[in-house]
Amino acid sequence: MSRILATYLIETSHPIDEAAESMAGEQSSGTFVDVPGETDELRERHGARVERVTELETVDEPSLPGSAPPEGATEPVQYTRAEVDLSFPLENVGPSLPNLLTTVAGNLFELTPFSGLRLRELDIPAAFADACPGPQFGIEGTREVVDVWGRPIVGTIIKPNVGLSPTETAEITETMVDSGLDFIKDDELIADPPYSPLEERVEAVMDIVHRHEDRTGETIMYACNITGDVAEMKERHDAVVEAGGNCVMVSINSVGLSGFLELRRHAELPIHAHRNGWGALSRCPQLGFDYAAYQVFWRLAGADHMHVNGIRNKFCESDASVVASARACQRPIVDDADTVMPVFSSGQWAGQAPDTYEALGNVDLMYLAGGGIMGHPDGPAAGVAHLKQGWKAAMEGIPLETYAEDHEELRRAIKYFGPVGSCR
Amino acid sequence: MSRILATYLIETSHPIDEAAESMAGEQSSGTFVDVPGETDELRERHGARVERVTELETVDEPSLPGSAPPEGATEPVQYTRAEVDLSFPLENVGPSLPNLLTTVAGNLFELTPFSGLRLRELDIPAAFADACPGPQFGIEGTREVVDVWGRPIVGTIIKPNVGLSPTETAEITETMVDSGLDFIKDDELIADPPYSPLEERVEAVMDIVHRHEDRTGETIMYACNITGDVAEMKERHDAVVEAGGNCVMVSINSVGLSGFLELRRHAELPIHAHRNGWGALSRCPQLGFDYAAYQVFWRLAGADHMHVNGIRNKFCESDASVVASARACQRPIVDDADTVMPVFSSGQWAGQAPDTYEALGNVDLMYLAGGGIMGHPDGPAAGVAHLKQGWKAAMEGIPLETYAEDHEELRRAIKYFGPVGSCR
Repeated sequence: MSRILATYLIETSHPIDEAAESMAGEQSSGTFVDVPGETDELRERHGARVERVTELETVDEPSLPGSAPPEGATEPVQYTRAEVDLSFPLENVGPSLPNLLTTVAGNLFELTPFSGLRLRELDIPAAFADACPGPQFGIEGTREVVDVWGRPIVGTIIKPNVGLSPTETAEITETMVDSGLDFIKDDELIADPPYSPLEERVEAVMDIVHRHEDRTGETIMYACNITGDVAEMKERHDAVVEAGGNCVMVSINSVGLSGFLELRRHAELPIHAHRNGWGALSRCPQLGFDYAAYQVFWRLAGADHMHVNGIRNKFCESDASVVASARACQRPIVDDADTVMPVFSSGQWAGQAPDTYEALGNVDLMYLAGGGIMGHPDGPAAGVAHLKQGWKAAMEGIPLETYAEDHEELRRAIKYFGPVGSCR
Repeated sequence: MSRILATYLIETSHPIDEAAESMAGEQSSGTFVDVPGETDELRERHGARVERVTELETVDEPSLPGSAPPEGATEPVQYTRAEVDLSFPLENVGPSLPNLLTTVAGNLFELTPFSGLRLRELDIPAAFADACPGPQFGIEGTREVVDVWGRPIVGTIIKPNVGLSPTETAEITETMVDSGLDFIKDDELIADPPYSPLEERVEAVMDIVHRHEDRTGETIMYACNITGDVAEMKERHDAVVEAGGNCVMVSINSVGLSGFLELRRHAELPIHAHRNGWGALSRCPQLGFDYAAYQVFWRLAGADHMHVNGIRNKFCESDASVVASARACQRPIVDDADTVMPVFSSGQWAGQAPDTYEALGNVDLMYLAGGGIMGHPDGPAAGVAHLKQGWKAAMEGIPLETYAEDHEELRRAIKYFGPVGSCR
């Protein structure tokens, strides 16, 4: 396949075939005016093609303002939704992720035939993907670092999320490391602020992590938030390496594709991709992106872990959307080497483990809990223990309540956080 | 001022003061669970503050899905809109643009109290702005390159936008340079694809531009689209310099803040910022960003010219929004040195000049026309002439129709593109 395939959800008052053609034209050889150089040969070689149009429901009101009905349309105007596949010649772009984004998700959001336009899926030729760095660690590589197999990687976020000095951060870390967790991370709101210089913070935290490792032989992964300018991210990455760190975290929407790619090419450590700002790109159902399309860019650019919210999360996202996102992260773009770990978080405790396992059919994920660990009535160790018990029960197909009968930490968690259908 | 001020439009079924406090908490010291380290002192020092809440209209239906009413709310739930100012301590972020974006436009789009949340404005302390590169050329510097004063910089886009070889691109350029225009640019869909290697293209185009300059003494600015990975953009920028070029163009949303900052620090040329993809961030009125807030990031990062669509454009944007965007670009963040040229394009001809001039009160802008130049019935030179005539008439307060009486190119344009209230 030498064409890029993009699937859109559209809403339009125009005949849908014409609307689809206008998208294809705008994002390839078309223009508003006739131009002498636009030959049939050029159109044939460089034009985007409408590969499929599937009509969906019709609505009476436009989802977004600013669209215009076709010329001569009579009231009342109706708006038809449809799924449209467009294909673009790879040659139009070359294997460039930023320019791919311009091609499949550029001006077309503003075209007047559309009262809704959302990029749902993206299928990339292997020739394109092969030219991208892709995940350096992915699922297997991440498991190797922490030596955790056959269950999710269990972790938490250091809180409070702003204001702790490096010493205070280390103190909080100290209260966590003996709990049995595999992973801790910075909040997205802390990177290298004046009150917590990153170099000091990573040294203080890794000192705790290393002493734990010396005592127990167990490695904890610490995702240190290095978000910043390109030069800063490289320096901070190197400071993490220097301190014996084993993961860096980046706020991907804040950094953008080109800066992220540059970091990935420099990186020796797994990159934990935080998607804050994602709501702006996704929360209007008829605009923006489905995560299935969005995550393709970041995986090809080199993310190893990608946040997907969680089932029964404390944000706005539906469980169906969360599950679709997580499945997308685990689905090969070209092959298994480009799959990444979906990161579940927000309101998670053991209560969502059975549904999460049922939805994915595997345990190749990170399962992060704040209150679900630190808020367990018997402390963080019981918090981590109850999560592992919940996942064990899920994998063995035993109802949590049954499994809890002889697992005290889970029993106490259900009493405190439950019932099982709720969120923490 | 040592605090960052962000203005939001919100929509919520919760008491609006409580909703505003939840935004402030989530984006600073707050968390879903009580945490031992979250002391009063920490909250006082690092907490975001609600500075203002202005209640607006109430609606019966939520604009976005996924929000949750307050506990115990009785049907029917109503949704109140409000404008909210939050302030954040500069110390929480440090002068880092990517981390500022996470702070003011991160997770909060997904908070359940909100059925709408949009960042409208952003006010930045001078201490922050001073630490950012900012525009290197801005309005004055851009005028100096082309030696055009007292009127807009008039330009066009090379079309067809995909598929032309470097030689063909130069041939099209050849048909343009004698028309009297000041500026030409690549389309956003062409950067460095296999069919048009950038180095060859910029050499071919600049050869035409230089020969024109040798003949006439007039400099034409060519914004060569260098969008790509960081290393690629630097190399391409250097290739543009090497070819005697005088401007680079970047698709800012495709590249992202960190990569853009890295290019800016390397750049010797004005950076023409193309905002393709902006529709996804802005087109839902209750989600995302107003341009007034968005453009602050890119100006501080170093954009010299920023696209704002145009009055009576061919896209979905309203004239009010276009005017607000252009005014924002011309309004100092700290001082005049950080103002940039708004770039008007899409459906532009002389017909919008009077309204544009009236809205801005100045001519510090770029005015790009495709059909309005290349589609003029008497050719590109008449196309450019009619635009300059239209702007002259606007500046002198003479109706276009009157001015056209003794300006043939304008007269013909009004006949062909008009009436004056329409778009090309």
